[in-house]
Amino acid sequence: MTPFNPPIHAKNPHLPFGDKQDSPFYGQDIISVNQFDRQQLAYIFDVAHEMYEMVARVGSFDLLKGKILANLFYEPSTRTSSSFTSAMERLGGSVIPINNVSYSSVTKGESLPDTVRTLEAYADVIVLRHPEVGSSALAAKYAKKPIINAGDGIGEHPTQALLDLFTIQEELGRVDGLTVTMMGDLKYGRTVHSLARLLSLYDIRLNYVAPDILSMPAEIQEEIGAKGIPQAAFTDLMEVFPDTDVLYVTRVQKERFEDPTRHENLKGIYVVTAETMSHAKDEMIVMHPLPRVWEIDMAVDEDPRAAYFRQMEYGQYIRMALLAMVLGKA
Amino acid sequence: MTPFNPPIHAKNPHLPFGDKQDSPFYGQDIISVNQFDRQQLAYIFDVAHEMYEMVARVGSFDLLKGKILANLFYEPSTRTSSSFTSAMERLGGSVIPINNVSYSSVTKGESLPDTVRTLEAYADVIVLRHPEVGSSALAAKYAKKPIINAGDGIGEHPTQALLDLFTIQEELGRVDGLTVTMMGDLKYGRTVHSLARLLSLYDIRLNYVAPDILSMPAEIQEEIGAKGIPQAAFTDLMEVFPDTDVLYVTRVQKERFEDPTRHENLKGIYVVTAETMSHAKDEMIVMHPLPRVWEIDMAVDEDPRAAYFRQMEYGQYIRMALLAMVLGKA
Amino acid sequence: MTPFNPPIHAKNPHLPFGDKQDSPFYGQDIISVNQFDRQQLAYIFDVAHEMYEMVARVGSFDLLKGKILANLFYEPSTRTSSSFTSAMERLGGSVIPINNVSYSSVTKGESLPDTVRTLEAYADVIVLRHPEVGSSALAAKYAKKPIINAGDGIGEHPTQALLDLFTIQEELGRVDGLTVTMMGDLKYGRTVHSLARLLSLYDIRLNYVAPDILSMPAEIQEEIGAKGIPQAAFTDLMEVFPDTDVLYVTRVQKERFEDPTRHENLKGIYVVTAETMSHAKDEMIVMHPLPRVWEIDMAVDEDPRAAYFRQMEYGQYIRMALLAMVLGKA
Repeated sequence: MTPFNPPIHAKNPHLPFGDKQDSPFYGQDIISVNQFDRQQLAYIFDVAHEMYEMVARVGSFDLLKGKILANLFYEPSTRTSSSFTSAMERLGGSVIPINNVSYSSVTKGESLPDTVRTLEAYADVIVLRHPEVGSSALAAKYAKKPIINAGDGIGEHPTQALLDLFTIQEELGRVDGLTVTMMGDLKYGRTVHSLARLLSLYDIRLNYVAPDILSMPAEIQEEIGAKGIPQAAFTDLMEVFPDTDVLYVTRVQKERFEDPTRHENLKGIYVVTAETMSHAKDEMIVMHPLPRVWEIDMAVDEDPRAAYFRQMEYGQYIRMALLAMVLGKA
Repeated sequence: MTPFNPPIHAKNPHLPFGDKQDSPFYGQDIISVNQFDRQQLAYIFDVAHEMYEMVARVGSFDLLKGKILANLFYEPSTRTSSSFTSAMERLGGSVIPINNVSYSSVTKGESLPDTVRTLEAYADVIVLRHPEVGSSALAAKYAKKPIINAGDGIGEHPTQALLDLFTIQEELGRVDGLTVTMMGDLKYGRTVHSLARLLSLYDIRLNYVAPDILSMPAEIQEEIGAKGIPQAAFTDLMEVFPDTDVLYVTRVQKERFEDPTRHENLKGIYVVTAETMSHAKDEMIVMHPLPRVWEIDMAVDEDPRAAYFRQMEYGQYIRMALLAMVLGKA
Repeated sequence: MTPFNPPIHAKNPHLPFGDKQDSPFYGQDIISVNQFDRQQLAYIFDVAHEMYEMVARVGSFDLLKGKILANLFYEPSTRTSSSFTSAMERLGGSVIPINNVSYSSVTKGESLPDTVRTLEAYADVIVLRHPEVGSSALAAKYAKKPIINAGDGIGEHPTQALLDLFTIQEELGRVDGLTVTMMGDLKYGRTVHSLARLLSLYDIRLNYVAPDILSMPAEIQEEIGAKGIPQAAFTDLMEVFPDTDVLYVTRVQKERFEDPTRHENLKGIYVVTAETMSHAKDEMIVMHPLPRVWEIDMAVDEDPRAAYFRQMEYGQYIRMALLAMVLGKA
């Protein structure tokens, strides 16, 4: 006569594992840059800066010991998946790497909501990279555990935008008052779209340097303009480079051009060289989300204003901060 | 004149790392459901329930700290490999993920016994998924370290059967006296075969609901019948659903049918909907090994009797229990 | 008026994380066997032996807790990547597994120097396997963190050569005075080339047993001969086997032969069987870098002189030693 035993989850529906629920962002999803205001950004950057201080002092620490991250990548991205893996491991947590979903049950026809609800049986937080716009929002709708959007197609890649902004803040000490020049493929690059949106919360000036067919989309310009941000478009970097505080360069992909010779021609124009840098301010930085191909000459790498490899490291601190926050430990 | 130095393994042939050898299942392989009797199952479920209690209380703990699991998957299975990874990490252990064996030395022609004897130089326990029946038994014959079978083709997948049975035990508080109805592809599904074998150790009643060409194989029915278990076959779920305590649904794969329209026709019949559920007992559960495609309507997910996502989590506790047991820590 | 905030790395350019910088090999790259002298080899083997002692006693320990290894494999190698993963995990460190670079940003055209400079933002040490000769040296030129060469095409695989030599030292108690016979593909096998170079630092005798078209290259023989090492070539193992202390067998790959029947014919000649072993000394060992195909009969595996699976385990201790050393913890 064994008595009826209620299901595990009737007793304990959200598996809180003893976390403090009063931590800001506890249990929240990170889906879009639009979910943040300046106060929240300042908080995230404070935590990320603390993460930097701790890493510099002790390398790693056990803030998330025992926590498990499912790193669910439907698209390959060594950079982003390595960065989240490292962030989780530096906080003492563990990772379930799922980098190769073509080999998974997804190929058996499973839906994203089912995959996510399965993985949250094993993990405490899910980082999701998926080729379809809106996939992270869909996953978050079904998951009880926090979802962090690591790129949903041409949609958003909010942790990239946050690390870009954090890089500016840490390297130049402020965001207000800066002139930011974006150069390269401004049409298809979700990176520059998200960063422009975040920057529009600050008192900045935006320059766009791009060939006609890759210029910043009108709807983004309108959205930014509605916040009162001065914007101007150019085809020659030299018109604005001497006044630029942040040059943000993006990759111009050959596949964007019907005529490959057009792509070849751009190589001579939208490239940053040591000579280019001789026209820049002393206190400014050059950023790039990487991978780069030819847009920045390797000779620039030694210039202290070349911030793109440091940018990768700031990304680790941002991701450490976000993981700690959504898991209630920040 | 350096004296002769005996090989490391002459001194220390089994590398016990100080484990207690009196733990039940210490050093044993988990190959088949047929290796367990009711007493052993009760022990495994006690340990698994303790794992659940510990996870609910502290999330993770260091029972297997310093131990290493080689997760050797010759076939993709996100679900199973993630579950073992999570189980090992929640116990403080580490994982060597080998999910992609087509990229490994196996493609250079290495035999499974050699691969396993290589990996046991690095790991303390090996989880093996392999497309050939008998592969885990073969690996276990050569390995000194424990092998856990995570699926050998159309052979066995014992940890799935154990987690299925554990789900029933935890959700309904008992196994004896229950009516279990299996529906879908009962011919090719190793999951239902293994579960039926385990259930035959208990005092239960089995119903099979399947189209003719996917019915439970005669040899399994004879094996189960020899244990005195009442079995009956149906083509319409409604004949038995009102008396069912556990409905176990499996995926009906399109590839099983020469005529694709036959598969389409089944979709209307072998599907569980909210309407279907209105005919069920209040205290019953619906299970599915996942991934599902169309066999259970998403509207059923919100029904508290839908146990299939909780089933995934029970799997984690079963795998934690098995890992701890074979490593001498339970 | 936020004051100017200098970039993170202006303050802390090498991110030492508090490591002792007086440890031998601290921060160094492991690129080639040619970088070691006998004194350094003795030191490495002392540390590796300590690693063995610790593993035998406690399994794992936290010497590298908080440290992160990026395991960057541009070519598949389950054996080598698993061995480094295990070595890092047994020392309490974490791993970023990057086994599948065809899925990475490398396919977007990124250069190796950029990939390495990105990964060192996340990791403390990088293990690199790459199909091109010189790739590890190139990576080391750009990286601030230590690079460990895990095979650069037909170039070097120094940790394999170190583990081979360590196996001889541990199993036979010495290297000086031994007769080492290498058999199989001596032309294309970088393993035997690197091992021969390391052995030439000791007082040994080298025998080469190979078909004409796979004989030891003249330039290697000259390099070894210049160190005063006696060398002799044979086509029949039996001419030298009774006096051999170490038989090092390598795989003869079918692809090396234009005429496949020639490969078939070799199978009867360059194979080690139980009968072969009856002609060997009592105190000798048979080694093989694995994977083997037909070169050593499985019946030999039970012979205590068959050291090839133990060789895998010695590899773990060597890699533990190297990781600890370059990270300043040995």
